[in-house]
Amino acid sequence: MSNEPNPPWMRGFPPPRLRTIRFEDLATLAYPAHRWMYSHWRELVPTACVRRGSRAVRPLPRASNPLADLEFDDPTGGRSSLEQAMRRTDTDGLLILHDGRVLFERYFGELQPQLAHRCFSVTKSVVGLLAAMLAHEGLLDPASTVVSHLPELGDSGWADATVRQVMDMTLSLQFDEDYENPHSDVVPSRTAKGALPRAPGYTGPASAYEYLRTVRASGAHDQAFQYATPNAEVLAWVLQRLTDRPLPALLSERIWQHLGAEEDGYFAVDPVGIADAGGGLCVTLRDLARLGEAIRNRGSVDGEQVIAEAVIDDIARGGDRQKFARAGWEMFDGWSYRNQWWVSHDEFDSVRALGVHGQQIYVAPRAGLVVARFGSQRVAVDEAVERLLMAAYRTLAKLLAG
Amino acid sequence: MSNEPNPPWMRGFPPPRLRTIRFEDLATLAYPAHRWMYSHWRELVPTACVRRGSRAVRPLPRASNPLADLEFDDPTGGRSSLEQAMRRTDTDGLLILHDGRVLFERYFGELQPQLAHRCFSVTKSVVGLLAAMLAHEGLLDPASTVVSHLPELGDSGWADATVRQVMDMTLSLQFDEDYENPHSDVVPSRTAKGALPRAPGYTGPASAYEYLRTVRASGAHDQAFQYATPNAEVLAWVLQRLTDRPLPALLSERIWQHLGAEEDGYFAVDPVGIADAGGGLCVTLRDLARLGEAIRNRGSVDGEQVIAEAVIDDIARGGDRQKFARAGWEMFDGWSYRNQWWVSHDEFDSVRALGVHGQQIYVAPRAGLVVARFGSQRVAVDEAVERLLMAAYRTLAKLLAG
Repeated sequence: MSNEPNPPWMRGFPPPRLRTIRFEDLATLAYPAHRWMYSHWRELVPTACVRRGSRAVRPLPRASNPLADLEFDDPTGGRSSLEQAMRRTDTDGLLILHDGRVLFERYFGELQPQLAHRCFSVTKSVVGLLAAMLAHEGLLDPASTVVSHLPELGDSGWADATVRQVMDMTLSLQFDEDYENPHSDVVPSRTAKGALPRAPGYTGPASAYEYLRTVRASGAHDQAFQYATPNAEVLAWVLQRLTDRPLPALLSERIWQHLGAEEDGYFAVDPVGIADAGGGLCVTLRDLARLGEAIRNRGSVDGEQVIAEAVIDDIARGGDRQKFARAGWEMFDGWSYRNQWWVSHDEFDSVRALGVHGQQIYVAPRAGLVVARFGSQRVAVDEAVERLLMAAYRTLAKLLAG
Repeated sequence: MSNEPNPPWMRGFPPPRLRTIRFEDLATLAYPAHRWMYSHWRELVPTACVRRGSRAVRPLPRASNPLADLEFDDPTGGRSSLEQAMRRTDTDGLLILHDGRVLFERYFGELQPQLAHRCFSVTKSVVGLLAAMLAHEGLLDPASTVVSHLPELGDSGWADATVRQVMDMTLSLQFDEDYENPHSDVVPSRTAKGALPRAPGYTGPASAYEYLRTVRASGAHDQAFQYATPNAEVLAWVLQRLTDRPLPALLSERIWQHLGAEEDGYFAVDPVGIADAGGGLCVTLRDLARLGEAIRNRGSVDGEQVIAEAVIDDIARGGDRQKFARAGWEMFDGWSYRNQWWVSHDEFDSVRALGVHGQQIYVAPRAGLVVARFGSQRVAVDEAVERLLMAAYRTLAKLLAG
């Protein structure tokens, strides 16, 4: 869309040197190269399959009145259209469902309907959903301590944390998740888990779990929301220890095989084979929308209760709004965070899964609305993009609910 | 089967140190660790998808009289059974079809029906099949020179080679493919294409194609068969240059989407995204058998002519038997090599695709027989195993043809 290179990335046998994307260059490759990377992640890193299984694909019927475009008030003033907004925000794909029917479906750049795209932290919401399901079934006690499952974390920031605090991210951790600061904890964390190349002679943590053992508490827990990717990794570690199933298999068996997914998904795995539960899931846009539909339908997919209603309701009720407010996420005023979902507490009961660079599920049950979106935006957390997209979604929700 | 470690490889979160298989250890990891690796290759290296597409799975109906076991003359003397032979040869999976019906299907070790297993050089036969298809359609002229497609190889061993010589491997190349010799050309070739880890400070070829440019001729071409993996890579390079499609997409579009495959397959890719055409394909046992069935049925799958009959017939007629004999493959006395298939010239018109460590397709049209086999045998090319399996297959072919 914007900044498309000519010739494009990774075309030709071999691709031209300056249009080649290699794993070893990932530490320095700049925007817009990640447009190709996000739709071809498995071609750069080892992965584990999230099988769709052998069931029939669940159709996504077209709406009788598809959406051609949408006009809405731009938060920065004036009017915008969905078309303009997509172009301004490096959208890779946008799929909008109303009452389960496709209102809008567009792909840009490298993304195609059959390609799995990086979900980044939408992954966390999937992990939180699995945790809430196991909690509902009594297999996981949210009141239990993390170290009762993972004694390895006895000297870490999770030493006196409960699973519930991890699920809702109300721990106080020494983990600076500032994606624009090259000296934050993002780079060492990603380097440990094999999502970034290692410098010659690297002697840091050799895996995701070795890294987690190095994370320390920064203050009293349970006072405020603190968004920290390692919490999702700890939560998935607990789930895997409890069920003795690798996360990709657990997700496939518990959810993905029941969605009528079109394609297999996958997780990036670290050097010892552990799935990246903080941001490593890759699925197609349509299959991401199918997950959104399952949430909208309170866990039911064509009559099968894939996720218990109580689990969906628990997410919809949200987390502690006071603790959330203390984190100072101005663009999410009045929201909360529950089971690794972002909860709006608005008139549409909307909830969201959010990943850096523009990955999103938006579910507004009272408007019958589900939006799945993939992006390659330059800035990891871009408040202007976020406000623009929220304005579009809310305009659409009002229209559909009206 | 034999030598299963306890605890097994790669179980637990994280797996125990001595039962962990990391990519960086691949240069030194010994048998039987490759049993896990061959069924989980994508968890160690980057890969590109070979999509099965959206068609219905083609059923593999059970035979009314399935095979419980089979007794046959062991080439080393005495009698053996299929059961014994499987155990002695580190079989991961064995699937036998008669007239398209499943006579026998067994999985061992790490392999499961839905898991894609490394095919090693069975990959070459798939590439040769695609080349023969394009030649039949007039898109590829086998009489054309390699350098007319790939000027990059002007200083290499392929400088004066034709595509046909590459397809039938009748070139004389300085390439020592001795898998048991750590100083042969196998290790540098695999290191260049990212199938083995690189030592710190590695300055060798950075990709499969950089490596190919370093391979030289060793004598006059077209005198004798010489099995050399780089030929398959050169052939796939030509196909990709001609069609402008990556090999995984070409295979999916031309063959895999038409087989009624159950699962996606994949190719390992090198550091610049090029699929490993010499040995990088991974597919399920059942889907490998479906390919065998398409060969047996002269390219037809449920009435669709996926591969032209003339292409199958060309393989069945075989290559130059005199040139083949000069290579001295004693266990394949009287055979030939055509379009990267091994041709027996026996009474069953049997042809084979063969990969190191026990990967095989055996198609015996006059017996209605197709065998797909995956293995993890210790020795890459094990003549004793080969003779044992051939004795089993021939006994079965005689039984079924009789």
